[in-house]
Amino acid sequence: MKVMKMDLKIIGDKNNKISIKIGDITVGKDKLIIAGPCAVENEEMLVKTAEKVKSCGANALRGGAYKPRTSPYSFQGLGIDGLKMLKNVGDMFNLPVVTEVLDVRDVEIVERYADVLQIGSRNMQNFSLLKEVGKTKKPVLLKRGFSATYEEWLYAAEYIAVEGNTNIIMCERGIRTFETYTRNTLDIAAISVIHELSNLPIIADVSHGTGKRSLIIPMAKAAIAAGADGIMVEVHPEPDKALSDGEQSLDFSQFEELMREIKSY
Amino acid sequence: MKVMKMDLKIIGDKNNKISIKIGDITVGKDKLIIAGPCAVENEEMLVKTAEKVKSCGANALRGGAYKPRTSPYSFQGLGIDGLKMLKNVGDMFNLPVVTEVLDVRDVEIVERYADVLQIGSRNMQNFSLLKEVGKTKKPVLLKRGFSATYEEWLYAAEYIAVEGNTNIIMCERGIRTFETYTRNTLDIAAISVIHELSNLPIIADVSHGTGKRSLIIPMAKAAIAAGADGIMVEVHPEPDKALSDGEQSLDFSQFEELMREIKSY
Amino acid sequence: MKVMKMDLKIIGDKNNKISIKIGDITVGKDKLIIAGPCAVENEEMLVKTAEKVKSCGANALRGGAYKPRTSPYSFQGLGIDGLKMLKNVGDMFNLPVVTEVLDVRDVEIVERYADVLQIGSRNMQNFSLLKEVGKTKKPVLLKRGFSATYEEWLYAAEYIAVEGNTNIIMCERGIRTFETYTRNTLDIAAISVIHELSNLPIIADVSHGTGKRSLIIPMAKAAIAAGADGIMVEVHPEPDKALSDGEQSLDFSQFEELMREIKSY
Amino acid sequence: MKVMKMDLKIIGDKNNKISIKIGDITVGKDKLIIAGPCAVENEEMLVKTAEKVKSCGANALRGGAYKPRTSPYSFQGLGIDGLKMLKNVGDMFNLPVVTEVLDVRDVEIVERYADVLQIGSRNMQNFSLLKEVGKTKKPVLLKRGFSATYEEWLYAAEYIAVEGNTNIIMCERGIRTFETYTRNTLDIAAISVIHELSNLPIIADVSHGTGKRSLIIPMAKAAIAAGADGIMVEVHPEPDKALSDGEQSLDFSQFEELMREIKSY
Repeated sequence: MKVMKMDLKIIGDKNNKISIKIGDITVGKDKLIIAGPCAVENEEMLVKTAEKVKSCGANALRGGAYKPRTSPYSFQGLGIDGLKMLKNVGDMFNLPVVTEVLDVRDVEIVERYADVLQIGSRNMQNFSLLKEVGKTKKPVLLKRGFSATYEEWLYAAEYIAVEGNTNIIMCERGIRTFETYTRNTLDIAAISVIHELSNLPIIADVSHGTGKRSLIIPMAKAAIAAGADGIMVEVHPEPDKALSDGEQSLDFSQFEELMREIKSY
Repeated sequence: MKVMKMDLKIIGDKNNKISIKIGDITVGKDKLIIAGPCAVENEEMLVKTAEKVKSCGANALRGGAYKPRTSPYSFQGLGIDGLKMLKNVGDMFNLPVVTEVLDVRDVEIVERYADVLQIGSRNMQNFSLLKEVGKTKKPVLLKRGFSATYEEWLYAAEYIAVEGNTNIIMCERGIRTFETYTRNTLDIAAISVIHELSNLPIIADVSHGTGKRSLIIPMAKAAIAAGADGIMVEVHPEPDKALSDGEQSLDFSQFEELMREIKSY
Repeated sequence: MKVMKMDLKIIGDKNNKISIKIGDITVGKDKLIIAGPCAVENEEMLVKTAEKVKSCGANALRGGAYKPRTSPYSFQGLGIDGLKMLKNVGDMFNLPVVTEVLDVRDVEIVERYADVLQIGSRNMQNFSLLKEVGKTKKPVLLKRGFSATYEEWLYAAEYIAVEGNTNIIMCERGIRTFETYTRNTLDIAAISVIHELSNLPIIADVSHGTGKRSLIIPMAKAAIAAGADGIMVEVHPEPDKALSDGEQSLDFSQFEELMREIKSY
Repeated sequence: MKVMKMDLKIIGDKNNKISIKIGDITVGKDKLIIAGPCAVENEEMLVKTAEKVKSCGANALRGGAYKPRTSPYSFQGLGIDGLKMLKNVGDMFNLPVVTEVLDVRDVEIVERYADVLQIGSRNMQNFSLLKEVGKTKKPVLLKRGFSATYEEWLYAAEYIAVEGNTNIIMCERGIRTFETYTRNTLDIAAISVIHELSNLPIIADVSHGTGKRSLIIPMAKAAIAAGADGIMVEVHPEPDKALSDGEQSLDFSQFEELMREIKSY
């Protein structure tokens, strides 16, 4: 095993744990529960989903407006219309909204509508984008690159912090391994490692974490048990009809069950 | 993601969950807590350790007599003397003992002294050895190969079952990934996957799982939360003086803490 | 093994192999040899290096002006000054220049000075950047993401092609595996796979490919033997004083040897 | 990257390169070309194959009598009958024979019939088996474990050497990575690394290396170009009817082409 010699001047200051206000909660003290569809598809499904997840105890709404897709021929998201829709629905239910920004030129517009700016796995080392979100005042959800070491991930956070924004929430979302039965291998140990090496909170994306619906609830319980500051989960009124990632989305009754299950921790 | 088309005639019979009697407990119903040193080093340390782990609630004692080591010049274990020592100390404290068998020619002798036969990670596809332990009546602890897929691991269990022995406990012990800060990446999802695809119980080796002492307790909590049927953990009176794997062993007070922490689950 | 069902409308047209004019050569017919320092450090070292590599038979000059670095505290490149310096020196020796573009906002300026736009490994799925270079007329060198599957890599190329630019050269640069003795594992099979599945030429980055100087020459020979359309290699007057990646750079006499060795293929 | 501190007392003696006499050739000086079917299926196919590969220039015949198979329900090889058949056919064509030994109890019988004892990938750290073949006088072909580091592989060879047998040929056969289009990723750099760190010859198994027929010839050329002391390749009269591994076997005309192609190196 490697001994890390990192120079994390800002986020490595472990004596000053960072806590981040999002809506009514303080991440680092309260559990952050981000739920919602993979992509914003239309207002109706979003309203239904927001209403449901709020009533079950979620405290933030997710939804992709700009979608990074492997193929240029796949659905790419609704863009700015999706952003506005998400914000409207968030306001309706008093839920702060979390959405991904893919392009440095979109940071301004996404910042206007979103409460939390998400940096996706593929962009974890898009240093220009990290710097741009570092110049905003909005909390940043920094997903781990699917093959990023802890060191690379922590330095990515430091890139954001150097620009002045230390409101960073790390998000473990599964790593790429030789195993193909699951989409990713959720690295639960990452939760403790980030807490040990930095002052940042960390949550787990339990949908991407394995890519399999049946594994979401046990993975959420495991993440919370290991000390995660929250979870992120995809919820859809009809997962089998989702435009993306239906296989890893919960339906409403499954989300209810999830919330019941993790309450005891 | 792959769709598995496996032919697990015996262990794939999910309607007949296998439960295994070990000492005073029934694995599958009660949590199996296997604790003890990586290797049997001498009787004194073993007695101390057994006494301690028993008093904290462990229900099985581990200890290696035959040690598989990367280098031929490393300590290879005490062999048959280690086996006898382990058995004696187990009897002293009414703790069933778990130890690894490396060689088909040793199955008979290990079976005589051990209550559970462990197949180590490097031997998960040593099919001759699998068949030999399949011919015994003793429960087998089958560790996942450090780069074995679920499919390969399940078929390894089927190799044992085909010979007549279905008393198999699967043990997730961390997989090899690109990450080097930890020794392995503990794949917590494996716990649910094995429960979904087979009728076998599964535990987590939380010492090898990450190779780092500070991560043992959170990983144990995560494993239990995800539904593990138990854990395996290395405990040593003085981890820093251990002949092998000290970095991933708990001292006595840490083991006490571990047991307190997982009791609430 | 997976059966790929890809929809590569443009680059999948295997009957129309793309050949790309760069300086005096036609990639796909002639071997492209890109050599030069990891980063543009100053004019003197660049002139020396360009003169040397030209005299040995290189037909393109590499040099980073914008450097993607894991840590925000590492040398980030000379930026626009580096670009201009590279172009000047390229002109001096009649060598087309290859340099990385990191930010969509820099595409215009990089296009002005560079003959080939490089997309680095970390940006292989920076879809905004892919689209922007797809709108230019300049050849694009598309490095494989360090953990990208062939499928993801090919679709990344398709993203560029969809915008109108089919002058794409694929570059295998080593993938991340469990092995830590080398920096990456150069996947030589990728050369044949890309030729089988697309109409694009492919070269190998034999410096990043393993990260070890002593392995560069054998890897270059292997790549050419497997059918690569060229290689990319880091050359520095004094590798041990390089501001980045000295360990994987050749000195002048080693580069001479490399060129002698691959000439016979 | 890791700095290795290995203690390879015997095989690390780089000034005394080991050369091994097999049939009419000396491995380390002449190229070893091992060809033949994955498994010995019947005498007729073996005779045909041996005749063909001999006439094309192969200097050793491979064929599995004991087959390690993921599933207990797959064809497990003809056992001792297969061994005898292989030996007979080898004698007929004056070809030394190479076959895998899986079980310590079979070493004696396999030694009687085989000219080279093969240790398969799954048994690379079956230390009992390594010791047993180390006690014989026969050359050992030591395949790399599919997820073994160079360090582990070299120590496995040292285990054999310590017992007195230094006639060891290393065999790179592809490693397990995230890529699923190929069965394995053939690590061509391993060839140079083993030459750098030990006194042993090394060949490449170009069939298992990628698992795809169309990649065998380019991979063989790459391996030889990188300095391999030979190759191992599966050849079958009718690959599509093979009882195992047909997808990675060449037919006769393809093997002819392979031999023509590598002759020029």
